[in-house]
Amino acid sequence: MFFASDNGGPTHPQILEAVTKANEGYRSGYGADAEMDRVREMIRDVFEAPDAAVYLVATGTVANSLALATLCQPWDTIFCTPLAHIEEDECNAPEFYTGGAKLTLVGEADKMTPEQLRATIKSKGGSVHNPQRGPVSITQVTELGHVYSLAEIEALCSVAKEFDLPVHLDGARFANALVALGCTPAEMTWKAGVDAVSFGGTKNGCMGVEAVIFFDPKHAREFELRRKRAGHLFSKHRYLSAQMLGYLTGDLWLQTARQANDNCDRLAAGMRELPGVEFIAEPQANMIFAKMPRALHQRVFDAGAYYYLMDGDLEGDDPNEPLLGRFVCDWSIGAEGVDQFLAAAKG
Amino acid sequence: MFFASDNGGPTHPQILEAVTKANEGYRSGYGADAEMDRVREMIRDVFEAPDAAVYLVATGTVANSLALATLCQPWDTIFCTPLAHIEEDECNAPEFYTGGAKLTLVGEADKMTPEQLRATIKSKGGSVHNPQRGPVSITQVTELGHVYSLAEIEALCSVAKEFDLPVHLDGARFANALVALGCTPAEMTWKAGVDAVSFGGTKNGCMGVEAVIFFDPKHAREFELRRKRAGHLFSKHRYLSAQMLGYLTGDLWLQTARQANDNCDRLAAGMRELPGVEFIAEPQANMIFAKMPRALHQRVFDAGAYYYLMDGDLEGDDPNEPLLGRFVCDWSIGAEGVDQFLAAAKG
Amino acid sequence: MFFASDNGGPTHPQILEAVTKANEGYRSGYGADAEMDRVREMIRDVFEAPDAAVYLVATGTVANSLALATLCQPWDTIFCTPLAHIEEDECNAPEFYTGGAKLTLVGEADKMTPEQLRATIKSKGGSVHNPQRGPVSITQVTELGHVYSLAEIEALCSVAKEFDLPVHLDGARFANALVALGCTPAEMTWKAGVDAVSFGGTKNGCMGVEAVIFFDPKHAREFELRRKRAGHLFSKHRYLSAQMLGYLTGDLWLQTARQANDNCDRLAAGMRELPGVEFIAEPQANMIFAKMPRALHQRVFDAGAYYYLMDGDLEGDDPNEPLLGRFVCDWSIGAEGVDQFLAAAKG
Amino acid sequence: MFFASDNGGPTHPQILEAVTKANEGYRSGYGADAEMDRVREMIRDVFEAPDAAVYLVATGTVANSLALATLCQPWDTIFCTPLAHIEEDECNAPEFYTGGAKLTLVGEADKMTPEQLRATIKSKGGSVHNPQRGPVSITQVTELGHVYSLAEIEALCSVAKEFDLPVHLDGARFANALVALGCTPAEMTWKAGVDAVSFGGTKNGCMGVEAVIFFDPKHAREFELRRKRAGHLFSKHRYLSAQMLGYLTGDLWLQTARQANDNCDRLAAGMRELPGVEFIAEPQANMIFAKMPRALHQRVFDAGAYYYLMDGDLEGDDPNEPLLGRFVCDWSIGAEGVDQFLAAAKG
Repeated sequence: MFFASDNGGPTHPQILEAVTKANEGYRSGYGADAEMDRVREMIRDVFEAPDAAVYLVATGTVANSLALATLCQPWDTIFCTPLAHIEEDECNAPEFYTGGAKLTLVGEADKMTPEQLRATIKSKGGSVHNPQRGPVSITQVTELGHVYSLAEIEALCSVAKEFDLPVHLDGARFANALVALGCTPAEMTWKAGVDAVSFGGTKNGCMGVEAVIFFDPKHAREFELRRKRAGHLFSKHRYLSAQMLGYLTGDLWLQTARQANDNCDRLAAGMRELPGVEFIAEPQANMIFAKMPRALHQRVFDAGAYYYLMDGDLEGDDPNEPLLGRFVCDWSIGAEGVDQFLAAAKG
Repeated sequence: MFFASDNGGPTHPQILEAVTKANEGYRSGYGADAEMDRVREMIRDVFEAPDAAVYLVATGTVANSLALATLCQPWDTIFCTPLAHIEEDECNAPEFYTGGAKLTLVGEADKMTPEQLRATIKSKGGSVHNPQRGPVSITQVTELGHVYSLAEIEALCSVAKEFDLPVHLDGARFANALVALGCTPAEMTWKAGVDAVSFGGTKNGCMGVEAVIFFDPKHAREFELRRKRAGHLFSKHRYLSAQMLGYLTGDLWLQTARQANDNCDRLAAGMRELPGVEFIAEPQANMIFAKMPRALHQRVFDAGAYYYLMDGDLEGDDPNEPLLGRFVCDWSIGAEGVDQFLAAAKG
Repeated sequence: MFFASDNGGPTHPQILEAVTKANEGYRSGYGADAEMDRVREMIRDVFEAPDAAVYLVATGTVANSLALATLCQPWDTIFCTPLAHIEEDECNAPEFYTGGAKLTLVGEADKMTPEQLRATIKSKGGSVHNPQRGPVSITQVTELGHVYSLAEIEALCSVAKEFDLPVHLDGARFANALVALGCTPAEMTWKAGVDAVSFGGTKNGCMGVEAVIFFDPKHAREFELRRKRAGHLFSKHRYLSAQMLGYLTGDLWLQTARQANDNCDRLAAGMRELPGVEFIAEPQANMIFAKMPRALHQRVFDAGAYYYLMDGDLEGDDPNEPLLGRFVCDWSIGAEGVDQFLAAAKG
Repeated sequence: MFFASDNGGPTHPQILEAVTKANEGYRSGYGADAEMDRVREMIRDVFEAPDAAVYLVATGTVANSLALATLCQPWDTIFCTPLAHIEEDECNAPEFYTGGAKLTLVGEADKMTPEQLRATIKSKGGSVHNPQRGPVSITQVTELGHVYSLAEIEALCSVAKEFDLPVHLDGARFANALVALGCTPAEMTWKAGVDAVSFGGTKNGCMGVEAVIFFDPKHAREFELRRKRAGHLFSKHRYLSAQMLGYLTGDLWLQTARQANDNCDRLAAGMRELPGVEFIAEPQANMIFAKMPRALHQRVFDAGAYYYLMDGDLEGDDPNEPLLGRFVCDWSIGAEGVDQFLAAAKG
C-alpha cells in the first residue's frame, strides 16, 4: 500500500537482469559501450527519428535542466506552468544550468492553454532590457496527473513556433501518458512540434535512468559538453545503458506504464465509491489527487498505507475535514495492493 | 516637454560642478579617494546609521543585483511583484548576479500586501527540492508611481522577519518617495526593517551613480568582492564620489526630488481637467500613468511632447480609443514645460 | 588484458548482490532509505569521525566539484597541480559548480611540495582586485600513480592552515593509496588536516558511487542544496546506498584495492625485466606510466592488450621509438591477465 | 610626482568639456544618444572598419570580460599569459562573465611567443573531458610595459587561426602602444588578425570609458544582451559617449598617449643615470619597472613621490637592498614632474 511516489518501488526484474548481464567483461567508458549503441538505435526506432541525438543521464532534474540549457540562452525566459517540476521541485536547477535564465509562469494550473501561452510570450521580450523569449516547457503527464491530448500539444507547439521558440517536453512519466493516449512516441513529440524530450525511465521501473532526446542533432556536441561539465557523464556508462536496454526490450516500458495506469484506474474507481472523496483533478494516468475526510485518511494510514497529505495532517479535531492526498501508482503495486487499500478505507 | 523618463534630462549643474571640482590633482583609485570618505560620512549621517556599509556603482540594475546577490543564496527565491524592475527590466541581471536564484512574484500589482507576501513565502521552501526562501525586494516609488506608506513598509518587513528573511528596497526614486512621505531616510528604511537599499542618484539629477547601503556592515567585504568581480569598481572612482557629493550637499537631492514631484503634481492636476483622461494609478510621486484618447496623444506629440505609449500607438482609426501613456517628470522640466504640455493638450 | 582504466571492468559480485538485495520492497527516496543510514554509520566508523557529514553521488567529477564548491567562494582560487583531474579532465566542472572560481596551478608535477604550495598561495590574494585564496585540493593516488606519504599530506595541510584555507582530497583511488600506505582512513585525512574527501567507489569495483565526506558537519545543509540543485540527488537513492554498503561490508573495498595494487606490482615487476622499458613515475599503487619501444607496444596490442598511448601511436617508422603507455589495474584483472600480458610482451 | 597609476590623474580638460557640452537638453537613454552615433562613426573611421560593432562601457575589467564572454563558451579555456590583467587583477571577472570558462596560462612572462601559444593550445582540448580550446587574449601594452610588434601580433593571431580560435586584444593602454609602434589602429588589430578589442580611454585621460569593438558585427546582439544583463548599460549613456567623443576629437587620444610615453622616456632616461637602478623590463610605452636601492626609494618618497613598491617596503635595515618600483606616467605628469622626481633622486 505504498502510494507515496513512483520512485519508491523496486526496479523491475527484467531491468535488473539487464544490468547484471551487462556486468560481464570490459567496456569502454563514458558512453562508448556497445549497450549504448543498441539503446540509441532502439530509441531512434521507437521515436521514428533516425537522426535524433540520444543521451542518458541518471535523474529527471538533470535531464530537464540540461535539455533546457541546451535550448536556451542565459538572458532568456522559459515558459512553463506554475506547477511545473522545473519551477517547483528542482531547487533552481534550471536557473543553475542555464546560467541564470528565468522561468515565466503561464496560467495558473498544471496545464497551459494556447491562449495563455501566446499572451504570456507576447508579454515578454521586446527590448534589450527585458528577459528574452526562450523555450516552452510542458509536462506530460502533468504534475496533477492530467494528460495533454495530441491536439493540445500541437496547439501549444504551434504557438511556440509563431515566435520561433523551441519546445521541451518533460516526460518523467512519458510512458504513462503514451499509454493513456494510445498514440505513438513520434505523434506525442516531434510530429506535434516538440524539439527535445526528457524521456523518463526511473519512475517507470528503472533504477535511475532518463534519456534526453533532441530531434535535431545539431544540439549533440553542446549537450555532450554540458553533461560532462556537470559531472553527469558516467564512466561506467554501461549500467545506465543496460537499464534503458532492459526497459525498452520487449516493450517492457509500455507494459509497466500500463500496469501503473491500470492500478490507478482501479484505485480511482474504488475511491469514487467512498463517501466524502472528491478528485481535484480527474485522474488520467497514474496519479490521483483526492480530498478525503481526515478520518478516512486516518483509517488507511492505520492499516499501513503510505502516501502524502498535501495540505494538512492527521492531527486535528475535525474528523470530517477534507484533506488532500496524493496517490501515485507504479507497476509494482498490483491489484492486491489497491484492493487492500480500498478494503481498509471501507473500514 | 520630455516626459519619457527621468533619465533623459541633463545633470544638475551643482553635480557637474562637483565633478569638475574633483578633477583637480591626483587621487588613489578604486574608492580610496577623499571624496568617497566624505560621501560615506554624509550617507551615514543622512540615514542615521553610523555603521552602515556604503558603496557606489553607476547603474540601478547593478545596485539591485549586487545588493540582492549579497543577501541571497543561489538556491533561494527572491520575492517581488510582477511589475518589479528586477523582474521586468533587467534582462535577468538578478539571476546572473545571484548565480541562478529565482524570482517569485507576489500579487498581481506594483505593490504587494503583507497578506500576499506571507502567503507567497509560505508556498515556497519546505524541503531540499524546493527553491528556498530568500530576500524580499520592494520598490519605492513603485513602477506605477505609487508610494508605500511607512506603515506598509513596516508591515511587509515584519512579514519578512517572521520568516527570518532580509528586505531589500529598490530606491531608484528614493528621494521622490521620501519627499512624498515627508519622513526621514531612517524611517523609510532600517527603522521600518529594511536591510539594504539601492539609493538612486541617476534619475534625480546625477550623471550615473547609485549608492548601495547595508545597515549591517557584515556584508561589506562580500559586496566589495562582488562589485570588483563584476567590473563595477571604478578605477577613477572620484567621479562617482563627486556626483554623490554634489547630490547630497545642501540637500540638493531633496530639492530636485521636490521639483520633480511638484512638476508631476502640476501635470496631473492639469490632466485631470482634460476630457477623456483617466489615471490607472493615482500619481503619488513623479510618474503618471494615464489613459487618454488617441487624438489627444496625437495633439501633444504634434506639439513636440515626448513620452511612451504603453499599450498601442498613434496609428489607428479610432481617435477616441484610450491609450495608456507614461509621463515621468524630473527636476529639469519646470512649470513652463508642464504648462506648455497642458496648453498643447487643450488644443 | 584490459589496462585502459579502472572504470572498464565489471562491478564486483558482492556489490551487485547488495544492489539486488536492496531491490526488495519500498523505500523513501532521496537519501532517506535505510541503506543510507547504515552507510553513514559505516563511513563514520571507518573514518573514526562520528560527526562527519556523509553523502553519495554517482561520479567522481561531481564529488570533487560539489565538495570544492561547498568549501569555496566564487571569487576564490583553488590550489592544485597542473595534472589534477579537476584541472585537466572535468571540462571546467569546478569552475561551473563554484560559480566561476579559478584554479591556480602549483608546481609542475602530479605532486606539490609544501614550499611550492606556500609560495603559490602567497602569490595570490592581497587586495580586492586579485583572485582570493581558496581551498587546496590534492589527489591521492595522484594522476601519475604516486602516493603522498602521511608526512607529505600533513605538511601540505599545515601550509594550508597557515593561511586558514581548507583542504580537499580527491580520493578517486582512496583505497589504493590507503592500502599502499598501510595507514587508517583517519590518518590519511582529518588527522593530517584534510577537511573534505571525495571517497571513490567507482574505480574500485562499484557501478558508480562516490562518497563526499565533510569532517565538519556545518557544511551539511549547503551540500544538500547544492547536490539537489545539480540534479545529483537520486530519487531511488537506495541503489547508490546499496553499492556503498556492498563495498564497505567485510572490508571488500580494501580487498579489491589490494588486488588492484598487487596486480600492478606484478605487472611492474615483469615490465622491469623487459628491454627498453622505463617508468616515468615509480608505480606506487595501481597505475603504471611506462615508456616502451613502439615494437613492444605493437606486440602486446596484437596479442589483445588494451591500454592508452599518451604521446604517440603505433603508426611510425621507428620500431625502437619509445612511446608512453598508461596501464591501470583493477581488482578484476587477476594474476593470469598480468602474466598473459607479460608473456605476449616477451614475444 | 604621482607615478602610481595612469588612473590617478585628472581627466583631460577637453574631455570634461565634452561632457559638459553634452549636458544640454534631453536625450534618449541606453546608447540611443546622438553622441553615440557620432562615436560609432568615428571609431569605425579610426579603425577603417565600417561594419564594426562598437560599444561603450565604464571599466576595463568589464570590457575584457564581456568581450571574452561573447567570444567564448563556458566549457572553453582562454589562453593568456600569467601576468595578464584578466588572470591577476580582475577577481575572477572573466570566469564570472563567461559562466565558468578557464584561463590557461601561456609561457611565464608578460609576452607570449607563437611557439609557446601553439604548444599550449595543443595541450588542451581533445575530448569531451578536457577544457575546450577558446579565445586567445593578448595585452598591448603588456602588464610590464612591453609592446608587441606588429609581426609578433600577426604571428600570434596566425597560431590562433590554425586552431580556428578568436583573438582578443586587451588595449587598456591601446593608444600608448599605437604611438610607440607608429602604426595604424587597423594594422595593430584586424589587419593582424585580432577579432575583438578593449579600446581603453580611462587610463589615457578619460573619466571612465572603454570601447569594445568587434570587427565581425555578428556578435552585436549577444554583446548588447550581455552588457544589459550585467548592469553595464548606462541609462544616461550620453556621458560615456561624450567622453569618448572628446577623447577622439582632434586626435586627443594620440596626443595624450604621446605625452605619457614622452614623460616615461624622459623618466627612464634620467633613471638610467642613477646609480644602482636596473630595469627589469625595457620601457617601451608609459610604464617603468625598475629595481632601485632602498635608500633611493626612501629619498624620493621623502620628497613626495608616489608609486608602488612591488616586492618589499621601505622598512628594512639594508639601504642598498634593491626593491622593485613600478612607475606609470600619464599625460598629466609633465616634464616638470619628471624632472622634479629625478632631482629628488639625485639628492
